[in-house]
Amino acid sequence: MGDVGIVATRFYEWPGKLQLEGGAHLGPLTIAYETYGELNASGDNVILVLHALTGSAHVAGRHSLEDRLPGWWDPLIGPGRALDTRRYFVVCANVLGSCYGTTGPASINPDTGRPYALDFPVVTIRDMVRVQKILLDHLGVKHLVAAVGGSMGGMQVLEWGFLYPEMVRAIIPIAACGRTTPMQIAFNNVQREAIYADPEWQAGNYYGTQGPQRGLALARRIGTITYKSDISWTMKFGRTIVDEKKYFHLDGQFEVESYLSYQGRKLVQRFDANAYIYLTKAVDLHDVGRGRGNYNEIWCNVPVCLGIGISSDFLFPPQQVKEIVQLINAAGGRALYKELKSPYGHDAFLIEFKQLEAILKPFLDEISRQV
Amino acid sequence: MGDVGIVATRFYEWPGKLQLEGGAHLGPLTIAYETYGELNASGDNVILVLHALTGSAHVAGRHSLEDRLPGWWDPLIGPGRALDTRRYFVVCANVLGSCYGTTGPASINPDTGRPYALDFPVVTIRDMVRVQKILLDHLGVKHLVAAVGGSMGGMQVLEWGFLYPEMVRAIIPIAACGRTTPMQIAFNNVQREAIYADPEWQAGNYYGTQGPQRGLALARRIGTITYKSDISWTMKFGRTIVDEKKYFHLDGQFEVESYLSYQGRKLVQRFDANAYIYLTKAVDLHDVGRGRGNYNEIWCNVPVCLGIGISSDFLFPPQQVKEIVQLINAAGGRALYKELKSPYGHDAFLIEFKQLEAILKPFLDEISRQV
Repeated sequence: MGDVGIVATRFYEWPGKLQLEGGAHLGPLTIAYETYGELNASGDNVILVLHALTGSAHVAGRHSLEDRLPGWWDPLIGPGRALDTRRYFVVCANVLGSCYGTTGPASINPDTGRPYALDFPVVTIRDMVRVQKILLDHLGVKHLVAAVGGSMGGMQVLEWGFLYPEMVRAIIPIAACGRTTPMQIAFNNVQREAIYADPEWQAGNYYGTQGPQRGLALARRIGTITYKSDISWTMKFGRTIVDEKKYFHLDGQFEVESYLSYQGRKLVQRFDANAYIYLTKAVDLHDVGRGRGNYNEIWCNVPVCLGIGISSDFLFPPQQVKEIVQLINAAGGRALYKELKSPYGHDAFLIEFKQLEAILKPFLDEISRQV
Repeated sequence: MGDVGIVATRFYEWPGKLQLEGGAHLGPLTIAYETYGELNASGDNVILVLHALTGSAHVAGRHSLEDRLPGWWDPLIGPGRALDTRRYFVVCANVLGSCYGTTGPASINPDTGRPYALDFPVVTIRDMVRVQKILLDHLGVKHLVAAVGGSMGGMQVLEWGFLYPEMVRAIIPIAACGRTTPMQIAFNNVQREAIYADPEWQAGNYYGTQGPQRGLALARRIGTITYKSDISWTMKFGRTIVDEKKYFHLDGQFEVESYLSYQGRKLVQRFDANAYIYLTKAVDLHDVGRGRGNYNEIWCNVPVCLGIGISSDFLFPPQQVKEIVQLINAAGGRALYKELKSPYGHDAFLIEFKQLEAILKPFLDEISRQV
């Protein structure tokens, strides 16, 4: 049992032009990715990890000895860990439209020499998956043991099951849905509006200026509420006030408010506002039924599925994962449901590593045995 | 069975100065109110209705024949209705800090001749209730059959039970809590921040200018999400797009997004942004335990309580109302719990009139018989 050590993000420069689902052509593309473990000769010992909204390709290990924190799923990836790098070649790519190395709205538009900003086309979860496929082809990957990810990562997992079912042995969507609901769209809408309403956003042309820091911070505050749970916050903060002397003042703050501000400020340091807009839009457009027929009747070719819900998730409630599992089974496929019993809300897939390991390890063992 | 007909909001000018819970003195005060039915000679046939965040004293009837909509609880108030005006004298006052006639941040500060704006002191739910008590004394009310209200109105109901238990036969809190939780505070925090972040807010000194319309509209959009439920929105909007041709465009909108915009714009027409700030702050500070001892052990003198939860409410989940009922019963008091079975979320107390009538009418009958 150990970690993957020091790792580096790599970049694949793809010279082509991709026709996006919305019709636009985008390219050449840079695809940022990390890999852990070794690809076997037959190119089929691969686990693809898909990241969530503000995530990156940096899933495991550290970029340097001074790195304060490891990658976002580090406890699950390494020799002897759930995604065992002695056995599997683990790959994660930053998604199309993001700001961690893969082409997105902050990237330079080769046609103008300036950042795309709002000239960047709307991208979808399917577009993200097609870009991942381009990378895997480049890496010599022939077959995936599994595609796994939570939240927006889980949406990509599902699209892998629809776009390339013959290439994936198992899909593992966590805290995700087959199509976003009005409330999920509504929460993204108000987050985008928080950015749009910031005068520093400048219709997206803020590169080289400070940018919509306050708007992006507010967006993140709103998002943060939806990623947590009232129970976990009650345990953590209760009704504690930062400064009792300010109890009856407008600028007095409860601990939870101070925490929200902190989360907002922290994201502003590391994320691009336009990327936030494009990625939340991609989530809104997520619908595995689009163009494939009746939503309830399209699941017959989906690979084996392990759906993982989170008991306290109110943004992507466990019922949505159960529904996916039911639809696959009803279509004659094989799907099972597991639940993270956690008070931490949607974010539990980034926290409950022991439970995730206990679910993922035996499932991956079984899937691998079936080769 | 009938409505109360044409009614008018009246105004009581109270010449005193009230010491607020936070220490400041505020006065003279204007208290806007409406009444329906007749006060009896003993002054004890009174039902006090308490309104929610952006509500007003206009609970029932119409202000003119041209009035498009009646008061916000109209179907429950009138001859033969649940709050039977042949029998009860029904009173509702606009809360302290609001903008519908009662003194609030948009009112003229007598010391300066200009609107209070942020010179308005922070007010609490208890302060609101003390102002209602001033009004009831003025009207000659000696005793309440019941105090009833939903959401922020339900918080006032509870404070009536703590501040003036000898004056109230029964309290009927709906979709409320004994103290707000971190998540409830967090949702108010992001709504206030939406207003603060609007440059037109001008630190509250926007009177005479257009004011923070976009910020207030965003606040309302966020609030609206918390007042509804995903199920009701899925039934109403699903994933319908306003303009299919804009599906893959950033400015394409799902129906639910268009609805949110509409709700935001509508509130801006009728509500003051500073009042929104002060009232959400009062909700955050709501804690019936403050200064009264251990929260779980202060319920012994509370009047008979009918707590009403809403099955699909995720902002004030039914569990919070059940907890109040349990605490009162555990303290040796009398409390019962009823639930609105509704898909409409928190707003159900403004929608499910038939269920409310079926719960309120027999309860009020029984309470009245016990005189």
